[in-house]
Amino acid sequence: MKNPLKTIRETKPLVHHITNWVTIYDCANITRAFGALPVMAHASEECADMTKISSALVLNIGTLTSEIIDSMILSAAAANEKKIPVVLDAVGVGATKFRDEMAAKILGSVRIDIIKGNYSEIAKLAGENAETKGVEATSISADPEKVAKEFAKSRSSVVVMTGKEDIISDGNRTFIVKNGHGLMGSIVGTGCMAASIIGSFASANPDYCDAAKDALVYFGVAGELAAEKSIGPGSFKVNLYDEVFNLSDEKVRGMMKVEER
Amino acid sequence: MKNPLKTIRETKPLVHHITNWVTIYDCANITRAFGALPVMAHASEECADMTKISSALVLNIGTLTSEIIDSMILSAAAANEKKIPVVLDAVGVGATKFRDEMAAKILGSVRIDIIKGNYSEIAKLAGENAETKGVEATSISADPEKVAKEFAKSRSSVVVMTGKEDIISDGNRTFIVKNGHGLMGSIVGTGCMAASIIGSFASANPDYCDAAKDALVYFGVAGELAAEKSIGPGSFKVNLYDEVFNLSDEKVRGMMKVEER
Amino acid sequence: MKNPLKTIRETKPLVHHITNWVTIYDCANITRAFGALPVMAHASEECADMTKISSALVLNIGTLTSEIIDSMILSAAAANEKKIPVVLDAVGVGATKFRDEMAAKILGSVRIDIIKGNYSEIAKLAGENAETKGVEATSISADPEKVAKEFAKSRSSVVVMTGKEDIISDGNRTFIVKNGHGLMGSIVGTGCMAASIIGSFASANPDYCDAAKDALVYFGVAGELAAEKSIGPGSFKVNLYDEVFNLSDEKVRGMMKVEER
Repeated sequence: MKNPLKTIRETKPLVHHITNWVTIYDCANITRAFGALPVMAHASEECADMTKISSALVLNIGTLTSEIIDSMILSAAAANEKKIPVVLDAVGVGATKFRDEMAAKILGSVRIDIIKGNYSEIAKLAGENAETKGVEATSISADPEKVAKEFAKSRSSVVVMTGKEDIISDGNRTFIVKNGHGLMGSIVGTGCMAASIIGSFASANPDYCDAAKDALVYFGVAGELAAEKSIGPGSFKVNLYDEVFNLSDEKVRGMMKVEER
Repeated sequence: MKNPLKTIRETKPLVHHITNWVTIYDCANITRAFGALPVMAHASEECADMTKISSALVLNIGTLTSEIIDSMILSAAAANEKKIPVVLDAVGVGATKFRDEMAAKILGSVRIDIIKGNYSEIAKLAGENAETKGVEATSISADPEKVAKEFAKSRSSVVVMTGKEDIISDGNRTFIVKNGHGLMGSIVGTGCMAASIIGSFASANPDYCDAAKDALVYFGVAGELAAEKSIGPGSFKVNLYDEVFNLSDEKVRGMMKVEER
Repeated sequence: MKNPLKTIRETKPLVHHITNWVTIYDCANITRAFGALPVMAHASEECADMTKISSALVLNIGTLTSEIIDSMILSAAAANEKKIPVVLDAVGVGATKFRDEMAAKILGSVRIDIIKGNYSEIAKLAGENAETKGVEATSISADPEKVAKEFAKSRSSVVVMTGKEDIISDGNRTFIVKNGHGLMGSIVGTGCMAASIIGSFASANPDYCDAAKDALVYFGVAGELAAEKSIGPGSFKVNLYDEVFNLSDEKVRGMMKVEER
């Protein structure tokens, strides 16, 4: 897509989140900083109605409960019917049996257009032998690119594996995004924010693989710009929001580091 | 009221919140920055007891559930009995049927002293034809000042409509507050914070219309001062807290922009 | 312990939290800034499993519900079995009957290794006559050092009373920590963060009294360094995270203010 950021800022898509209680504020705020409109509504009585007036749905199981999973499925069904993109951030899959089961329940009940996680979360979802340390990736034995590509093909979905290098695949095309900075890992929530940004970009671009790749490039570039001015996680987070707010498609074009394989 | 900020800082009122999970931290923190003491307690077993030791109650339905609404009603009943001010921030009314119904349930069950929302939320509550885009106002066909004034009169409450210009009315007096800055809309939660500040000011001033007007003036002035030093939402939020912390009644007096109609 | 911070940064302990919805993000973020890995998981179906792969458990009853308390007890039982440290932050005990009862339920059901609260919270837990203003300490009539020491002895636990001076006692040794800065009280959540830090330090040091003392010294030193550069709660919080991130055992050694009694 030519100017995704300009498009988001002009169309101001409503991005419905059912997400965790740790980073919910940052998911909302980064969505706003990119120019989209966040809304968070998890009650089973209204979640599907909120999805129906939205342009994307972002699900994040960081602090899941059975009730929240039920609401996610209600909302995703409404999103599937409306044909708006659904992003699942599979936080902590590989850490407990309950997370593995609930993620499987979602994937077995509704269509997820973009499945996102760190290396061990996606590997676990894809049936590989993998464990997650709480919500932190551990090293996996399988080849991550192969895992992403094959899992994407088997699900007919876009798969996003985040890490030092991000891997995005729809089973045919595979992008490696090398933008980003180590300080992004010094604050909690950049992974969750990435899912919100992917939802925002996918609401504006029907090629979800391209949208997810762009989302991670734009966020990574903002992170690089912010890191130049920062001495720790406090200043980094402040600068990250300022850089996202002042980002432009032109600025990103000169800094993107993407390989297609 | 002569020196509302000085009064709050001297009396340190306890402001009980039952609020949403997105901006709960900022509601607590801005309450503290103004000099009041925030407490958040939503369990049905204790919420009324917490209200009984408080000086104001702030309700915000941003991430409502049926259980949370029940707790709000329990707490508001306790507040009504103790005759402390109750603020309702009608977040997202006009977006889903459930929100409309739950807001009506609250308004039908207990006395709300100050009803706050953006233009479309208040218009919807007042029975006008209005829709809310998630939690964002959309333009309304009715005259907002007339809506605020008549809704206030019909409810015998103070009505606060926030937007580029804030409208505060008790049905007789109507204030237009023109303080504030565009960057306040670049971060999520300034609307929710405003409700917390209104609660803090109302705990110190029995003229709730005057208190709500003052709250928005003080917050708006802090926003203007913060904006001068900020280049985006990250730095703006930092500066906003610093400016609120260093605000004084004297400083605000020279900057207030209020019309009475 | 010689170099607790270096140890935490090398071992990256997983610190499981079941905590409140107000400061949950800051609990996670400060844990990360100190070099440990935070995870928050409260669902009854998985909380014990998450504790089983963790190195410490931090419980905080700030926004408690009956269900959350049940999850806390499930997790603490798993922690007791695994012999990893359990920290209880008794937020708001002394404010409502429900909090008093739920704290008593936890203390009667599982072993709590480190009991933390402000002066009035701990005094109330210890059976003294005390009231808490929401979540803020009020002055207590009893001698706080004596309360901490005797309560620690009676429970065979470490007791941490936070305030202008922090008191840490295991019933035999009593430490008074005088590090810290007034600006720490200008932001919401430093008390909750302190519990997360205590959990992180205790995961690395089997002498929990020493660990709790170190945690408060390190946090207090970071607060002092941050305050030098700050003009209000906004800048203070940014600088606090940067200072924690850039802290070292060497830096702290030159600034610690501890008395042993």
